Formats: sequence, structure tokens, C-alpha cells
Amino acid sequence: MNIKREKTDEEIIRRLKEKFGEKIISDLKNGKDPTIDVIVRGLSNIIFDEKEQLIKLGNKTQKRAFFNVGQTRIFMQTLLVANACKNLIESGKTTSIRSLYYNTKHTIGDSKENTFEEQEESNPIIEDIEVSIDALREELHLRANSKGAMVGNLTIVDSGDKIDLRKMGSGGWAVPSIVEPHTIQFKECEAKFVLFIEKDTVWGRFNEDKFWKKHNCIIIHGGGQPPRGVRRLLKRMHEELKLPIYVLVDNDPWGFYIYSVIRQGSMKLAYESVRMAVPEARFIGLSSFDQEKYNLPDEVTIKLNEGDKKRIKELLNYKWFQKKKWREEMEYMLKKGVKLELEALSSKNIAFITNNYLPEKIERKEWLS
Amino acid sequence: MNIKREKTDEEIIRRLKEKFGEKIISDLKNGKDPTIDVIVRGLSNIIFDEKEQLIKLGNKTQKRAFFNVGQTRIFMQTLLVANACKNLIESGKTTSIRSLYYNTKHTIGDSKENTFEEQEESNPIIEDIEVSIDALREELHLRANSKGAMVGNLTIVDSGDKIDLRKMGSGGWAVPSIVEPHTIQFKECEAKFVLFIEKDTVWGRFNEDKFWKKHNCIIIHGGGQPPRGVRRLLKRMHEELKLPIYVLVDNDPWGFYIYSVIRQGSMKLAYESVRMAVPEARFIGLSSFDQEKYNLPDEVTIKLNEGDKKRIKELLNYKWFQKKKWREEMEYMLKKGVKLELEALSSKNIAFITNNYLPEKIERKEWLS
Repeated sequence: MNIKREKTDEEIIRRLKEKFGEKIISDLKNGKDPTIDVIVRGLSNIIFDEKEQLIKLGNKTQKRAFFNVGQTRIFMQTLLVANACKNLIESGKTTSIRSLYYNTKHTIGDSKENTFEEQEESNPIIEDIEVSIDALREELHLRANSKGAMVGNLTIVDSGDKIDLRKMGSGGWAVPSIVEPHTIQFKECEAKFVLFIEKDTVWGRFNEDKFWKKHNCIIIHGGGQPPRGVRRLLKRMHEELKLPIYVLVDNDPWGFYIYSVIRQGSMKLAYESVRMAVPEARFIGLSSFDQEKYNLPDEVTIKLNEGDKKRIKELLNYKWFQKKKWREEMEYMLKKGVKLELEALSSKNIAFITNNYLPEKIERKEWLS
Repeated sequence: MNIKREKTDEEIIRRLKEKFGEKIISDLKNGKDPTIDVIVRGLSNIIFDEKEQLIKLGNKTQKRAFFNVGQTRIFMQTLLVANACKNLIESGKTTSIRSLYYNTKHTIGDSKENTFEEQEESNPIIEDIEVSIDALREELHLRANSKGAMVGNLTIVDSGDKIDLRKMGSGGWAVPSIVEPHTIQFKECEAKFVLFIEKDTVWGRFNEDKFWKKHNCIIIHGGGQPPRGVRRLLKRMHEELKLPIYVLVDNDPWGFYIYSVIRQGSMKLAYESVRMAVPEARFIGLSSFDQEKYNLPDEVTIKLNEGDKKRIKELLNYKWFQKKKWREEMEYMLKKGVKLELEALSSKNIAFITNNYLPEKIERKEWLS
């Protein structure tokens, strides 16, 4: 399944009605048990598309039937959430998935039965609906938490406001959760690449040193594992502005994983990879070979713990980490038994990362993809 | 100790030199053991100033001596960090405390002794230095993590860039870690108050509904417990723009605690209260009495767990929560045995919080301080 084309609010409403309204009415009119088809999101239906280099969902579906005692509750919940999304879109508002949960939670009739007990019940249903109508939750007007900031040689329009990302001071523009084209549009752009930085404090170093000005680029962070808004924005800048994406993370399994999610998506959200992942994203550092290359002292490395080692071995089994260069990265990390944080480069001097490390890496094309 | 006056870079360098340079040299010249005086930051020196309604440090000091075997290491570490801060200020750059740790970490001479083993060793020394020279870490050019965003009827200048917070779209201006007057200046302001909102997704509701435009204010969030930059900005807007600060948090012990830290500071960072805390901050909700007042159904409340109950009992013992109204808030929460999230108001409708709840609360002056 591919979800590439932008969809209007009207189109989303049409699909919600078709799938969760007209289909049910038609079943009833025809004397059939009302059912809805939902694409399976479990491991059994997750594939790695070698050609596209994306983690994706396959085509397995399952039925949810109203007259199946084991499915009645989830059948009703699905219609309830679909209806709430329809109302939300019609109202022209967006809301958080937590707020949607409260909005749809109520006691049924005179019973003591609640529509939902926990948000853990409504969240997967949102995902079911996304997959079923081939849309992202942002198109259902649902917001996630937002994190991250961006500055650089780009002008954007956000909800009608023109924002010059060259003049955003030390703070930057806070990346919102919904960055679809109807909210965020790209305008003047001189930038030649995008640099994604794992940590906000390191991003602060790049912004303070005006790295984006000197090297004509855009810099963005996501406060650790980037939230949906940041990932989607990376994808859009890559596709629409034709900019290469460089990823700068700690040299540890978590850093590799952050890169991995940006590059081909995650198994948990496999259905979103097509809209979120950037298979051409370039891993620019820190590399397991950087300690020797940059002559960093042993005392700034950190010993791998058992969890780190286990995680690296897991990553080594991922289909998307089978290239020779990747295996060397991870095997060397295991062999040395240490990891390295971005801030460790400060042992040279605090601006080494912006003045030397990054420019040299890009100049010499020392990245992995 | 009061740390109110703004200090220039030169003044900070002068204090660092005096306290950690000249004093030592003078000791040596006079044939005395070199020592430095550090203000005690532990519980024994933390006081609640009833008049100012602030958690503060007292005046107890302790000596650190070079020729005391138990203190040599920390004595040297203190000078090392003080020197690194001096260099940092002179370079005109800022950096994160993690980067400073790596910058000062090295093996001493031919020994196997490191200057620091963990960042947990260098962080308290930064706090010692702050207290010793009566400055905040931001004045030492040290950054913390940043979180949070702001929009509203205010124009600011951030690092030379003029930013109109009325035109920041759905994302807003990302609040940086250092918001001292040399970085951030306030310009045109029509706003009549500041609304601090605990959660970013709820802030998104207020921004989307242009609450700040309708009610002529500034809205800001800190992604949960607000970071230093957001707290300091609240303080500055309160003092310099003379704006009342309203605090909107979940109705749970964590929400009360967030309000409490904004209002009179925390014990851990008692020495910063004078520069960070806003004793006049107004708690606008959610109140423990809101469920009845707004006729919210039982199913949107959440049962207090044992941790919640324990925490409320602790809060009830805090000197700054002894006003009758505060005790009633907390005792009623305990009695009902439930808590209430901001999003629970969505059970009325998703814009109830912006269209009804908040305007009514402010109109009727229903806040606690």
C-alpha cells in the first residue's frame, strides 16, 4: 500500500463515510452481518521492501464483525472514533489523540460499560482507521506531541504566517505536529542540504555558530528520537525541495536506531514509512571509527553496557543493516566495547564539531546510506 | 542572597578571577593553605522566605581546602570548571553542561586519574560556582536542554533577530535555554497577561483557536515540567512587562508541583528562586472542584494511585501550601480519590477549554495564588 498523494479534507471524509458508514448500511440492507475490513498491523504483515528500502505493511486484512461477541466492542469503538474524526475534520479543528480519547469516552446508556477504559484502547483504533482509509492521522486532524526546532536558509508559511527561518534567533521555529502541505508550505529556499541533529543542545551549537549560514543549509533537531512532525518535514524537504538529508547522532545503538527510523521507518508504524521515511538519508556521524580518526582520548568514550551490546546484535540482524559498511560500523563498536557521544568532540574544543568535524565529513563525502 | 541585578560578561569574569584565582594566589603568597568558600546547597541551608514567598538558600558556607586529602579532588575540579567557564565567556560562545563536562574531562599527567568520571561530578560544581559568585549558569554561558514554545501579542528580539510572536503559525517560537537580556529583549507588547500551559498538545488547542488574539495575551508551554528557559522567561515577562502569569495544569499532584516550582522555586535549585520564581503566579486550574462545577462525567476522572496519594500528603506539608484554599484543593482531591487531566474537558467538546473554561475562570477571577 502506498500513501503518497496528498488528500483533501473532503476526500478523507468521503473515505470515512464509505468505509465506516455506507458499507455498514449496505450490509444491513442486504441482510448481512455488518463487518469492516482492517489491514493487519502485526508482525505477520510487516515486510521490508528491498527495492524501496522501506519497512511496509503487506496486504493481509482481517474482518471485524458486529455479531461476533469477541469483536462487538472493538467494532463499535472503530465506528465511534471514525465518527469523531469525521466531526473533527468538519469542524476545521485539530486535536491530540489524548483529547480524542476523552472526547469519545463515555458510559453507554444506563449500563456501567464505558466506550473506552484506557487511551491504550483508542490509540490502536486510530491506527486501524489510518491504514483502512490509506491516510495519516495528521489527515484525520489528529496531533501528536511536538518536539524539535528548525532554522536555516528557507522561508516557510505556517498556517498563513510567513516565517523566515533565517531570522529565528537562538530559539528557532518550533516544529509542530502537523506539517502537511495545507498547514506548512515551502517558499524561498537557497539551502543545499538539511542537517538533522539528534540533540537540541548540539543543535544549539550549530545555530550559535551560524553553521547553516556558512554552509548554506537547514538545521533541525527532534529532541532525541524525532517526533512525527520532524520526520514528516524531513521527508517533505527531501522530496519537494530535493535536498539531501544528513543525520548526525551519537555513536551508540540508540543513535543508529534514530537513523534507521528516519531512513526506512519503524516496525511499529510500518504503514507510515511511505510518507515518513527517507531511504536516501545519509548517516554522517558519529562513526565507530571516529575516535581514532579524530584522535579522541579514551576517557571521553563510554563503556557499552549489556543492553547496548544486546541492541547492537539485534540491529545486526535487521535486513536494512546488511551492507558491508554498516556491519563494519556495528561490529567495530562491539569489538571496541565503547560508545561515543556527540559532546565528546568538545574535548578538542567546543566548536570542533561545527568548524572541523562536520565540514570535513561532508567535503570528503564520508557518509553511509 | 539575592541575584537580581543583570551582570555583564566582564563582571562575571571579574568574579571568577577574584574568587577562584586571586584568592588562591593570595593564600599561597601569605603562606596559607589555599581554600575556597562555597555556600552550602544542602537541605540544612534551604529556607522558605515567608515574606518573599520564595524557597531560598541561607548563608551557611563551607571551606574547600587544597591540602585536605578529602577535598583536594573537588578543590581542583572547582578551579578547572571555573577556568573553563572563564574561557567560554571570553570566547563569546555558550555550551551545554554535558559539553562542558567533556571539555574539562581528561587524564591527569601520566596517571590513570581522570579529572571527572561522570557528569554527576561536574554538574554540582557548576552549581557551586553559580552560588559562589552569585550568578546563574546562563551567565556562565551554560545551556540546559530546551523545551517549550511561545506565541502571542508580543515582539521580541532574539540574538539580533526581530521576531513577531503574532505571526508564528502553528509551531511558535521555540524557547531557548538562555533567555537573559543580552540574548532576548522585549519590544512591542499589547498583551495583558501570560498563560502558561503544562502540555504542548493543549497549548496547540489554544494556539489553533487563536486564544491569544481573542483574549490579548501570550501563551507558552514547557512540555511538562518547564525547563529553566521557560521559567526565566515567565519571570522576566512578569517583572519587565508587568504581566500577571496564569498557570494551567492537570489536576493532579504533578500539576500542583509544576505550579509550585513556578511560584516559589524548588529545593534542589533554591539558589535560583530569586531569578526564576514568580510568587504572584496564579493557579487558574484545573481545580479539584472543577468536576462538579463543570458537570464532567465520572468516567473522565482517573483514580489516584498510591504514589499520587503519598505525593499529595507531602505537598500538604509544604510551608507554601498552607493557605486554607490550597489545603481545601488538596484535601478534596484526596477525599474524592481521583485526578483530572486537562484533556478531560474535551468530553464537553474539544474547544470547551478555550471557549468556555479559561475565559470564565479569568472573568470570575477564580484563581489561587
